[in-house]
Amino acid sequence: MKNLLSSESLSKEAIEEILQKADSFLGYRGEDLKGKILANLFYEPSTRTRLSFDTAMKRLGGEVLTVTDVHSTSIMKGETLDDTAKVISQFADVVAIRHPESGSAQRFAENSDVPVINAGDGAGQHPTQGLLDLFTIQKEKGKVDGLKIVMTGDLKYSRCSNSLAYYLSNYDVEFVFVAPEQLKMKPELLKHLDEKGIKYSETDDFKKGIEGAEVLYCTRIQQERFASTAEYEELKDVYILTKALVEKKCPDSIVMAPLPRVHEISKEVDELPNAAYFRQIENGVAVRMAILTKMLS
Amino acid sequence: MKNLLSSESLSKEAIEEILQKADSFLGYRGEDLKGKILANLFYEPSTRTRLSFDTAMKRLGGEVLTVTDVHSTSIMKGETLDDTAKVISQFADVVAIRHPESGSAQRFAENSDVPVINAGDGAGQHPTQGLLDLFTIQKEKGKVDGLKIVMTGDLKYSRCSNSLAYYLSNYDVEFVFVAPEQLKMKPELLKHLDEKGIKYSETDDFKKGIEGAEVLYCTRIQQERFASTAEYEELKDVYILTKALVEKKCPDSIVMAPLPRVHEISKEVDELPNAAYFRQIENGVAVRMAILTKMLS
Amino acid sequence: MKNLLSSESLSKEAIEEILQKADSFLGYRGEDLKGKILANLFYEPSTRTRLSFDTAMKRLGGEVLTVTDVHSTSIMKGETLDDTAKVISQFADVVAIRHPESGSAQRFAENSDVPVINAGDGAGQHPTQGLLDLFTIQKEKGKVDGLKIVMTGDLKYSRCSNSLAYYLSNYDVEFVFVAPEQLKMKPELLKHLDEKGIKYSETDDFKKGIEGAEVLYCTRIQQERFASTAEYEELKDVYILTKALVEKKCPDSIVMAPLPRVHEISKEVDELPNAAYFRQIENGVAVRMAILTKMLS
Repeated sequence: MKNLLSSESLSKEAIEEILQKADSFLGYRGEDLKGKILANLFYEPSTRTRLSFDTAMKRLGGEVLTVTDVHSTSIMKGETLDDTAKVISQFADVVAIRHPESGSAQRFAENSDVPVINAGDGAGQHPTQGLLDLFTIQKEKGKVDGLKIVMTGDLKYSRCSNSLAYYLSNYDVEFVFVAPEQLKMKPELLKHLDEKGIKYSETDDFKKGIEGAEVLYCTRIQQERFASTAEYEELKDVYILTKALVEKKCPDSIVMAPLPRVHEISKEVDELPNAAYFRQIENGVAVRMAILTKMLS
Repeated sequence: MKNLLSSESLSKEAIEEILQKADSFLGYRGEDLKGKILANLFYEPSTRTRLSFDTAMKRLGGEVLTVTDVHSTSIMKGETLDDTAKVISQFADVVAIRHPESGSAQRFAENSDVPVINAGDGAGQHPTQGLLDLFTIQKEKGKVDGLKIVMTGDLKYSRCSNSLAYYLSNYDVEFVFVAPEQLKMKPELLKHLDEKGIKYSETDDFKKGIEGAEVLYCTRIQQERFASTAEYEELKDVYILTKALVEKKCPDSIVMAPLPRVHEISKEVDELPNAAYFRQIENGVAVRMAILTKMLS
Repeated sequence: MKNLLSSESLSKEAIEEILQKADSFLGYRGEDLKGKILANLFYEPSTRTRLSFDTAMKRLGGEVLTVTDVHSTSIMKGETLDDTAKVISQFADVVAIRHPESGSAQRFAENSDVPVINAGDGAGQHPTQGLLDLFTIQKEKGKVDGLKIVMTGDLKYSRCSNSLAYYLSNYDVEFVFVAPEQLKMKPELLKHLDEKGIKYSETDDFKKGIEGAEVLYCTRIQQERFASTAEYEELKDVYILTKALVEKKCPDSIVMAPLPRVHEISKEVDELPNAAYFRQIENGVAVRMAILTKMLS
């Protein structure tokens, strides 16, 4: 595995190997990556993902270079991304890049001398988030095959649901996509599921859609996706997961979210054992430890 | 000691233990905290305090995650402080938090899985600064009991004088509070001193107030505290400690300040052996090393 | 060597010792500086230089404190640079400072308790960049004496060409300075070369100037140096190094640049073996490893 740029690029064997390795890294501290350096190159802020990589590297005895800048253009004063890749890859042994533009991780990797991990590029992919979500499902439910996976909210722009769905298409699962008309799952992903023979259904009825979910993956609906405020306000209130809804509609589900949670999941849901979204964080560190060791070994 | 959130929460025994430990850490480099991770979470800039914690952790062989952001709300894109605490405490073994709002360290701690240190929250508390000030007094004067402590400047809004005064109320000291009417020491602290039976007096006469001081703790007066510029300008000039004043009014004092020094202490005072404000910095690292080891052992 | 503030301050012996040491550090990872702390104090953004120092320190097992801030004044809330030096030098064992004002590294060093490295101060000096450039010349050409060195572009404001020229004045080289009238090499440097008996010529004819170069050092021309946009646009197009020009005018040259490359070197030049500007990066890390070990031993 030279790079990790997209979910599709990983075989089921590679995925399973990472999940198994991640399991052995839960709670682990060691010196496996002593003397190795990760460059955390964040062209847009994402404290959670940045710290997850930072922690993963440090728990393995490695070192981290950090570059954060809200204004993507100012990281290297007018330098092209190609040149930046040639420069940064001489400082580090592996690079994690977060960038607002889809395809930029790929372009960076083409010019880098060291392995590159896509830590989220625009509306494109977020392959390490997808892996940690998959790992969480396996840990929490004890299996992946046979599960009914319900994804809700903004499925069009969420690179997290996107990446997870690609991974899950390697398994025998059934999807329900619950989204307003404007934010339906991308056609290319549905086409991919068709090709893989994965069953799915679509609905904009939130309460019906979540019924019988075994995995409930909630993404938040953002105001900037809508033409009018009124339209947003109306939908926002519909796509809120409450404690009562979990208890009534999907009591056997685990509830997941890519975080931050804003208003798509009521705070009272935290009290339920179903709430897995904070447990995802610890899983994320373990998954990234697995990826980093795989790439640097 | 699960958390360190306020000066009042430490018993005299706990204080003394930290001071003793700090003394043994002056100039120390070791691996006591190897494999441990501190999250330095700064919701407002404070380079001095941040680097002091960073240095303390690294001198003990530990690792540091850094989050700095001028705009407090953008650290975690609309996430509540409760959720941020639940997330961050899965990355780190201990968290130092600086926040512009009083009470936020307490709230963070209630949601954290790991120990939390208040690195200054609004006009509230700054318990590690208070401890390093107390440690400096003990190192420089060889004792705390029996000393005449004079605090000058903005006593109302200075969390540093506030935290130090609470610690000192465990000892047999005498206070003189020298402040303009608008910036007098908070009534609740005076009440606390009354309850503890600590003697204190108040004055707005700077030259008289500092007479005979054995410890002179100078905080700066900030323009934004005043209704009119004229009022500020007049007072600003009165509350300036000069070399001549130290030599004439309190030749046996040590002069301390929480830094940065702007104009409240003349540069010429630096030449005097009384000037202890830069020595406080090294003491601060040792005190934070003591606190970190105490929390992580 | 207490500090490294300017190119002139290093004797030829000291220079040669650093170059030799740097050579042994190419590709090296060790624990030579375990327990030591570098403060990377950047009052203006320079990701490349900052990461180079950061990497150098970490490849030697040392630790790094990072301070970056676009607004130079806000690093320490109104504190003087003198006071900041007194504070920072108690946290770190060595300080690398980048500052927009010429002379600030010197002033910082006068108030610091630990060694200080000038990582670029205004239009002044950039002595570590000069050393890495010199090291690159020696590595690529196998020698320094006897070479024809051509520097092009903005020679007036480029601290990089400035620092390199001072180092090279210790060797038997010949300079050609190719710059528009407004951006000619500083008179004090030319005077220094005269005193050292170093031959040089000046021209504003780019194509003629680069003829027969063995080292071609290209700095970019910045719009803000010109009174009118038209004047800039005209010159900008003249000072562009193309693949054809290298092949025709100076086929035996190595092409160097302080980076970032904006438009002064065509991307097609990257394909030529002459292009040494990305190899400079790795050399820069080795040179900084040599400087750090020299200062901390």
